[in-house]
Amino acid sequence: MVSLIRRGLTIGLAVLALVVTGRAVAQTDTLPSWNDGATKTAITAFVARVTKDGGPDFVPPAERIAVFDNDGTLWCEQPVYVQLAFGLDRVRAMAAAHPEWKQQQPFKAFLAGDKDALAAQGEKGLLTLVAAAHSGMTTDAYATSVADWLAQARHPRFHRPYNELVYQPMLELLAYLRANGFKTFIVSGGGVEFMRVWAAKAYGIPPEQVVGSYGATQFKIGADSRPVLMKLAKVEFIDDGPGKPSGINRFIGRRPILAFGNSDGDHQMLQWTAAGPGARFLGIVHHTDAAREYAYDRQSKIGKLDKALDEAAQRGWTVVDMAKDWKTVFAFERGGTGASQ
Amino acid sequence: MVSLIRRGLTIGLAVLALVVTGRAVAQTDTLPSWNDGATKTAITAFVARVTKDGGPDFVPPAERIAVFDNDGTLWCEQPVYVQLAFGLDRVRAMAAAHPEWKQQQPFKAFLAGDKDALAAQGEKGLLTLVAAAHSGMTTDAYATSVADWLAQARHPRFHRPYNELVYQPMLELLAYLRANGFKTFIVSGGGVEFMRVWAAKAYGIPPEQVVGSYGATQFKIGADSRPVLMKLAKVEFIDDGPGKPSGINRFIGRRPILAFGNSDGDHQMLQWTAAGPGARFLGIVHHTDAAREYAYDRQSKIGKLDKALDEAAQRGWTVVDMAKDWKTVFAFERGGTGASQ
Repeated sequence: MVSLIRRGLTIGLAVLALVVTGRAVAQTDTLPSWNDGATKTAITAFVARVTKDGGPDFVPPAERIAVFDNDGTLWCEQPVYVQLAFGLDRVRAMAAAHPEWKQQQPFKAFLAGDKDALAAQGEKGLLTLVAAAHSGMTTDAYATSVADWLAQARHPRFHRPYNELVYQPMLELLAYLRANGFKTFIVSGGGVEFMRVWAAKAYGIPPEQVVGSYGATQFKIGADSRPVLMKLAKVEFIDDGPGKPSGINRFIGRRPILAFGNSDGDHQMLQWTAAGPGARFLGIVHHTDAAREYAYDRQSKIGKLDKALDEAAQRGWTVVDMAKDWKTVFAFERGGTGASQ
Repeated sequence: MVSLIRRGLTIGLAVLALVVTGRAVAQTDTLPSWNDGATKTAITAFVARVTKDGGPDFVPPAERIAVFDNDGTLWCEQPVYVQLAFGLDRVRAMAAAHPEWKQQQPFKAFLAGDKDALAAQGEKGLLTLVAAAHSGMTTDAYATSVADWLAQARHPRFHRPYNELVYQPMLELLAYLRANGFKTFIVSGGGVEFMRVWAAKAYGIPPEQVVGSYGATQFKIGADSRPVLMKLAKVEFIDDGPGKPSGINRFIGRRPILAFGNSDGDHQMLQWTAAGPGARFLGIVHHTDAAREYAYDRQSKIGKLDKALDEAAQRGWTVVDMAKDWKTVFAFERGGTGASQ
């Protein structure tokens, strides 16, 4: 009888161990595309600290604000920013309705494929082209143009829709943070209206939690008596570099406790987040993986990472080594699709 | 025996009736400071329509965006906007640190109490005074100055802290909407940083759901190597009148399904909200109660309500008659406090 009870107890303990082990595995598997190691541990340890009720670093849910850069942090920014690719394609599509562009720089050079003449227009020429694709229409018409473009455009290397080129480990991180009471925001140099078209579907981040650059808009009562917002050519705010803390202050109104970026354009956002009291997490995606994505940092024209990388080393910020820390980069590598998250 | 059973049944039914009645009362009591009538019914009928799963007007929770003007809609804006009272008090408090103001208009006239000289400076003079109270300091120092002022300033008529002059029926409406899955936002001509200091406590609306006017800020690394945001004197955006739809588009990124205002400064926000597809609720607080609050509309310098009142009549928007529709205006009328909501 005693032995039967003991056996029962043993079996019971074994079942209990299985259940406990099963649970433990399920818990660490909230970040399955992250390899085990110091980076993953830094993330989970931080979340454990700030969510431990009664602990010294506990942060109430309302103050668990997490901000993420977009280009190069949540999705691929090479060989050119996606919004730049959109802008140039849109100018081509709009050319038929703008016969005057044939005589007008930088449109003339661009439409004729004259690279030397376009280069002579400099960066300002490029900005003029992109601005044309982002103004002179209603906000609704603009959103439609972005959605239509995304549906047909393909990345030159991966031959997939751009919104499938989101980083699977970062999708898991966003979901993990939200499951732990964080409110996740995008804080990007990209256009706020460009991102909102697809951010909810791609990242689970609603329009009101997307912070970005923006131009002026003008309220008008249209010919059909319906009010519209017209997008003007005037850029009002660039949410990049030192602009990011201003954008965070303006849109969110409180200091994040977690910030993730990948370039010097995120440096001040990381500094601003780090300067608050209490526990903080500062993360940088370091592009070290030419095989699966791209490898670039200090010398890159797009996503240059130099000063922020130095400060990360000095201050012990978490630098994600893409090649080493990420088991998977894109969901499509394993047959899934990153766009349906 | 049968009579005993009958009596038992009767008592049982009576208890059941009590329970049922109690429940029914509890349900309609989500808006206890609103008198029964067409206005209250319009609100509850709209909420019932858009929350009825499977109904023709159902709106998913993520799209239940409700926007509220602040001054005159959620709290008292008479005899002057609260932020103006703050600005003028601040200039007085800052004067000792600015000896140059004694020789400089409009400060000289204001500090000397010279009303004629101040009037000669016009509206621009007033704006200059208020701008001085809102710039030349860090965002943290500014927030502290607002909190300190609110703690000691008193309304000239009601002799209470300004953040107790919030409308009890509107607090109930905000809570009722949130209980029905709405996300509530402030969209005000007031300064976004001014409102965020007290809006969470007063209305249960977190900083990231406050949209307002704002000035430029500049990121700087301070003398102690800590980053700060300096508030500059440059006004970047006025979130009023035709600016409100732009502010909604910029900060929220989707069209509200419910909007509440009280003046012509809210007219375009109401039009913009009304122009979306599906069920919409447009509300105007009409100040008709000189006894408990104030009575003003078409001729008022503050909170002028003229064109929006005409359009409300034409289009069947809901106009709240404060004297008739509100059982209570301020929580303190019944011995409570409005500031602890």
